[in-house]
Amino acid sequence: MEGEPTLRLRVFDLNCWAIRYLSKRRQERVRLIGDTLRQEGFDLVLLQEVWSEQDYSDLKVKLASCYPFSHYFRSGVIGSGLCVFSRFPILDTLLYQYSLNGYPYMLQHGDWFGGKSVGLDRCGVGVTAPLLSLSLQLHAEYCRDKDSYLPHRLVQAWELAQFIRHTSKAADVVLLGGDLNMHPEDVGIRLLCGWTGLQDAFVEATDIKGCKNGCTLVPNNCFTDKSELLPFPLGIRIDYILYKAISSFTVKCEELKTTMGPAPGTDIPFSDHEAVMATLHIQRQGQPVGATLGTADPALADVVTEARTEVGVGLRAAQRQRYSSGRMAVLALLLLLLQAVAALGTLAGLGADQPFPKLSFCLLAFLALGVLVLATGLHLFHTMEVKMLHGTEDQMWMALRALQERP
Amino acid sequence: MEGEPTLRLRVFDLNCWAIRYLSKRRQERVRLIGDTLRQEGFDLVLLQEVWSEQDYSDLKVKLASCYPFSHYFRSGVIGSGLCVFSRFPILDTLLYQYSLNGYPYMLQHGDWFGGKSVGLDRCGVGVTAPLLSLSLQLHAEYCRDKDSYLPHRLVQAWELAQFIRHTSKAADVVLLGGDLNMHPEDVGIRLLCGWTGLQDAFVEATDIKGCKNGCTLVPNNCFTDKSELLPFPLGIRIDYILYKAISSFTVKCEELKTTMGPAPGTDIPFSDHEAVMATLHIQRQGQPVGATLGTADPALADVVTEARTEVGVGLRAAQRQRYSSGRMAVLALLLLLLQAVAALGTLAGLGADQPFPKLSFCLLAFLALGVLVLATGLHLFHTMEVKMLHGTEDQMWMALRALQERP
Repeated sequence: MEGEPTLRLRVFDLNCWAIRYLSKRRQERVRLIGDTLRQEGFDLVLLQEVWSEQDYSDLKVKLASCYPFSHYFRSGVIGSGLCVFSRFPILDTLLYQYSLNGYPYMLQHGDWFGGKSVGLDRCGVGVTAPLLSLSLQLHAEYCRDKDSYLPHRLVQAWELAQFIRHTSKAADVVLLGGDLNMHPEDVGIRLLCGWTGLQDAFVEATDIKGCKNGCTLVPNNCFTDKSELLPFPLGIRIDYILYKAISSFTVKCEELKTTMGPAPGTDIPFSDHEAVMATLHIQRQGQPVGATLGTADPALADVVTEARTEVGVGLRAAQRQRYSSGRMAVLALLLLLLQAVAALGTLAGLGADQPFPKLSFCLLAFLALGVLVLATGLHLFHTMEVKMLHGTEDQMWMALRALQERP
Repeated sequence: MEGEPTLRLRVFDLNCWAIRYLSKRRQERVRLIGDTLRQEGFDLVLLQEVWSEQDYSDLKVKLASCYPFSHYFRSGVIGSGLCVFSRFPILDTLLYQYSLNGYPYMLQHGDWFGGKSVGLDRCGVGVTAPLLSLSLQLHAEYCRDKDSYLPHRLVQAWELAQFIRHTSKAADVVLLGGDLNMHPEDVGIRLLCGWTGLQDAFVEATDIKGCKNGCTLVPNNCFTDKSELLPFPLGIRIDYILYKAISSFTVKCEELKTTMGPAPGTDIPFSDHEAVMATLHIQRQGQPVGATLGTADPALADVVTEARTEVGVGLRAAQRQRYSSGRMAVLALLLLLLQAVAALGTLAGLGADQPFPKLSFCLLAFLALGVLVLATGLHLFHTMEVKMLHGTEDQMWMALRALQERP
């Protein structure tokens, strides 16, 4: 075992906050990120929120010599924002879009337009069978006390966990880096790690450097929204590097590091998030290790139950919204029909003394039509939401049954 | 090898055409399907187009004794229509939704609302490691000569193939049943089989019974649209059972059978499609077989190139539609702005002799607003379409490069 070759893998993960026209000093920061990546020479770089393909292309040109392999995942209206740069060949890719990702009408929270998804790369790293690396982002949390997106984020965490379980079987090592938008103690993180057996590099690391508690959203960073961080004076940890050895390999985290505000030699940080960097040791073991679940089953059953309860809350809210949008559509349709009858009556000369002036009549009809179209669209959307929440609830129930039946 | 246990697996696949309020004699047919499935006692039943959850629940109750395990996949507005009944425990499920599935505004071709997807079940069948069974449907073909949905169907076939490649590694046997909406010689089928190594049960079967050429859409069936089948007097084969042995197993198809019009003892068939039934023999082999691609690489490269060309055609069409919807939105916005300026001018008393009557002015504004909303929606939709077609083109290019580099 001692004689087996070891792979030392240096991984970089960053939510780049590179939204065209909206993110402050974007181009400068993307240049800075590119320069640093070129200097540092990581093995694998997982980036999120690279919303502009031009930024990706610029990075690709700049990094071509040290990271010859790269992939940009396209999805949604403005893209997935996910890209990967690698020193090792990328053999294959797969994009999985979460079935729920916020609401299209919540324009101020643009998550829906981002087409949030998980991008999977199979990299040939030599020592192991293809390494599965995943770059991803989950739905943002806008208000922790009254988090109306929690059910969507839990559906995403569940789908992510299921996706990892189903795709990771042939890999020796799974590596996940991304902005999970969840605190370490949140039910979504516990669900993801428990149900897949992924380990948190921050928890496992022998040596930790950078922000206290591995925080990646810190008040020190000049781009963060200070008011959001008021309840958390040290910051919060929402960006993670998680890993798992599947077969006859072991993975150990030697060092975990975060950036701390301004990049060296400049006055600005890379992004509004801090970058997470991990140095992992991958070594072949004598005996194949079975795919293990992370926590003991009774605890895992509790986590799944907790997540299922939250999904249930979301399901009932979605059902209410589906009902009220449907009722609104029916009312608008009735109004339109009433107006059509009145108009036909006038045409037939029945009610020549029509009380409404023509203009108001037309305005009302257009208003009713507008409401009808919007309410129907909303009804369809919430119907889909109900279906997906219901489906996830079912799957979690099936998982609970499997956990209980396990000897 | 001779002494190894053999599993004889009887599989049933049917597109049930069970659309509430639209499909003819739906309830009668669903009852008939249930009765037959109970009598025949298959091992695995893959159904598509069971759009009503009530129909699924009725079938579940009726089949509980002979198929104790079942799963219904929820997605889209009206569901995925996919369900599975199994004599073996269903250990885990995963739903993958294709990124493209027609257009929401093509109401007469309701594919978009169906949320077409592939449902994956891992069944514990005893002899093998979990058997991966997939039930699915691809986008329908409405006009073979001018098939505007071909690029979407090819994206789906590609995503399906990639999904199978990434999820099948831990299974011993992969089994796929569904309505692929493609003729056996179509590029999509060649792509799917070539890129995954799946084999067509009809081609491999020792014994074939039922409709000539294994057709599943036949003029004999009283529910089929006869005009669609005019160029194909014998019918067409668009429903398939495909399979693949991954590791140390071999799969052989002993018999392939289709139904032929009316079900025995009745005057109606099960559906507008014929059912496909296969009897497979699964046996352990001495030596593990590597995951093989179905055809020789040069031929496969040609197939991927052909598919990529079609996706490219779709990409350019989508880019044109994105451009024209964007232009329409801009024009509508300009008209609205012009009207706003005119209205402000009138209010300021500048153009008191406004030539338009108030009513026409308002109607025009509402029209412009309607066009703006619709065109913006279309623009967003086609932007997503472009992203996904572009992404698939990229992935196919990566696959081609990998095929060419392979020794």
